[in-house]
Amino acid sequence: MRQSQLFTKTRREAPADEVSKNAELLIRAGFIQKEMAGVYDYLPLGLRVLKKIENVIREEMNEIGGQEVLMTTLQDPELWKKSGRWDDSVVDNWFKTQLVTGTEIGIANTHEEPVTQMLTNFVKSYKDVPLYVYQFQTKFRNELRAKSGIMRAREFLMKDMYSFSRTEEEFKEFYEKCAQSYERVFERVGLGDITFRTIAAGGSFTTGLTDEFQTLSKAGEDTIYIDKGKKLAINKEVYTDENIAKFGLDKNSLEEGKSIEVGNIFPLGSKYSDALGLKIKDENGVEQSVIMGCYGIGLGRVMGTIAEVFADDKGLVWPKEVAPFAVHLVRLGDSDEVTTFADDMYAKLRKSSVETLYDDRDLRAGEKFADSDLIGIPVRLVVSEKTIKEGKVEMKYRTESESQLVTIEEVLKM
Amino acid sequence: MRQSQLFTKTRREAPADEVSKNAELLIRAGFIQKEMAGVYDYLPLGLRVLKKIENVIREEMNEIGGQEVLMTTLQDPELWKKSGRWDDSVVDNWFKTQLVTGTEIGIANTHEEPVTQMLTNFVKSYKDVPLYVYQFQTKFRNELRAKSGIMRAREFLMKDMYSFSRTEEEFKEFYEKCAQSYERVFERVGLGDITFRTIAAGGSFTTGLTDEFQTLSKAGEDTIYIDKGKKLAINKEVYTDENIAKFGLDKNSLEEGKSIEVGNIFPLGSKYSDALGLKIKDENGVEQSVIMGCYGIGLGRVMGTIAEVFADDKGLVWPKEVAPFAVHLVRLGDSDEVTTFADDMYAKLRKSSVETLYDDRDLRAGEKFADSDLIGIPVRLVVSEKTIKEGKVEMKYRTESESQLVTIEEVLKM
Repeated sequence: MRQSQLFTKTRREAPADEVSKNAELLIRAGFIQKEMAGVYDYLPLGLRVLKKIENVIREEMNEIGGQEVLMTTLQDPELWKKSGRWDDSVVDNWFKTQLVTGTEIGIANTHEEPVTQMLTNFVKSYKDVPLYVYQFQTKFRNELRAKSGIMRAREFLMKDMYSFSRTEEEFKEFYEKCAQSYERVFERVGLGDITFRTIAAGGSFTTGLTDEFQTLSKAGEDTIYIDKGKKLAINKEVYTDENIAKFGLDKNSLEEGKSIEVGNIFPLGSKYSDALGLKIKDENGVEQSVIMGCYGIGLGRVMGTIAEVFADDKGLVWPKEVAPFAVHLVRLGDSDEVTTFADDMYAKLRKSSVETLYDDRDLRAGEKFADSDLIGIPVRLVVSEKTIKEGKVEMKYRTESESQLVTIEEVLKM
Repeated sequence: MRQSQLFTKTRREAPADEVSKNAELLIRAGFIQKEMAGVYDYLPLGLRVLKKIENVIREEMNEIGGQEVLMTTLQDPELWKKSGRWDDSVVDNWFKTQLVTGTEIGIANTHEEPVTQMLTNFVKSYKDVPLYVYQFQTKFRNELRAKSGIMRAREFLMKDMYSFSRTEEEFKEFYEKCAQSYERVFERVGLGDITFRTIAAGGSFTTGLTDEFQTLSKAGEDTIYIDKGKKLAINKEVYTDENIAKFGLDKNSLEEGKSIEVGNIFPLGSKYSDALGLKIKDENGVEQSVIMGCYGIGLGRVMGTIAEVFADDKGLVWPKEVAPFAVHLVRLGDSDEVTTFADDMYAKLRKSSVETLYDDRDLRAGEKFADSDLIGIPVRLVVSEKTIKEGKVEMKYRTESESQLVTIEEVLKM
């Protein structure tokens, strides 16, 4: 895309009303914009990142047999009354609204109840399970405070998967499979080295322990103790001698760190299936409970975390697979020769399907470089009077300080 | 995908609480499921259709220079007070909710105000326009009645584009360009022959006339008068001698028909830009108004219309570009020979990237054919003892009654 056409512009100053680094940088670079506290629009650059994260997750969910659906935001209270989660004293961050008739309805906070109810139409026998349903759908949480940018928003896009199994054993098999799938997701979006499967408290879902995926970051709200060799961590909230021993960890080899929860996987037992009447008949025609699990990744949370952990003092730094563009082509000067060379390079990159943001604006070099660093595309290619003399382009990785002169053929071979 | 893995199942009986043909068929075939009146989930088959419609629209919007964003559902009342549209007496189908603090906020009904407000951050000069912003985002409308299935839902996915131009002339140029783009969209999704650009009343947006895109259907709520030669129609609501003459139509060559509004394009003038303070400076530094237009297509409306107009007494009939799968491969019998032949054919189709639903279930032929007709995939391939004797497969188009024996090579060449 030609940057002269992109309607967003970068800002030099940080917005006065943001305290989180992710929101500050993403707003300055034109990736997001704030509607209200905890409520953010995704602008063209930000939406490209969000969609790339979504595609990585979709591929991995399909790989383990997930079937994609799209459930609704408006929610029938009757389903939530069955599980006991309609009352504001039980779930304290509901948004609710009313039909014209005055009937109160919910605005999706999560989807365990509707997905379970939906399956009562299709699942009757042990032959119908196991099955795994997932979606990318917005969740609404009426948070009292929202000051972590897109890492804890009032409205946010989530991938939520639900598993339905016949036995505890069958459930656990998938639970492990999904945990491994999550590791691939975080690896692919660039967070693999600093993200740890973490033993945690089950929260409102379960009385037992459960698993989180935590990414090391100074901006994190959690504290974890990590065994880097085993790639396993334990959340401070369950950091007891008993649990340390239970998971074969050694207190002396654990390192403390602040972290951000980027994903979680929960056993749900038969709490929701029993409450909503989702039962299966076994070989003998006897009704049995269905064992459920749920598996969440907040897409904005992942994007915000990537922004937080990789940014440097010049701006954002996107890992290759989630970058809004693969290449930032920057034209310096506006002589016919430079323009022709840069236009030609842009055409060649497009022809080779290299996603390119082409800075064809008439601005000073300093401004262009500052913008390029702020936006954080992995590879910068500069075309100037100097480079075209050698028929080359100056290439620099966002993560490195040294540049090199290369030919277009070398760029395309990358 | 193997049909034995698909969690949805078809139903023989129509749901008792649906009066519209689209909802009845889409529910029976397992494409959607109802949460509440006018609130539908998209199941795997339905979501595939919805995504295909979305991709067609996205390609055409990008083609005319649209920049994709994703705005929010939660809405700041202050923006709507500026344009005078917050009050329920002005917009009578708002859903509203409250923050924990008690502050009342909106649930997006449309996005003119927020998109205009957003652009005040980026648009300052005549050099910053024209520009075109669009999104695929859910709209919420608190309809008193909702009995048209996914054609008039309380919650529905919409493509809404907004144009920002310097002059009325520049605006009109894009308006025409977008109208032509809409014609390509409806052509590609299979509705081209029965969809007409239609002169209509501007509704609450404008006092002048505007354009709708209307698809002929007995299920339609509108009445239009069509000049088939000119591919132009006039809505009954503005069917006056004056308008007929104005658009060069001849009363004697107009045919009356019932129709469904599948898209609309509206001039907005400077109503929203003035109300929200979006101004541009001209060459002399003088502030000028920005001329806006909006351009909507409801994706569920399009999908419901396709279901309504093409279905026959056996079920759904999907046009190629929006079909959930390109091919329905049906295996009859479960001998090793048949299974091996069908599995092999499925592998070859997948290898050639032909999207295939493979009915590998152990059911009677009659049930499989009934399901295949109900689901409505364009091409059915049957593998049976009879066909494999000749090393072939029986191919039938959903829209035809005759089948023919063909080789796998002939199928792949299609």
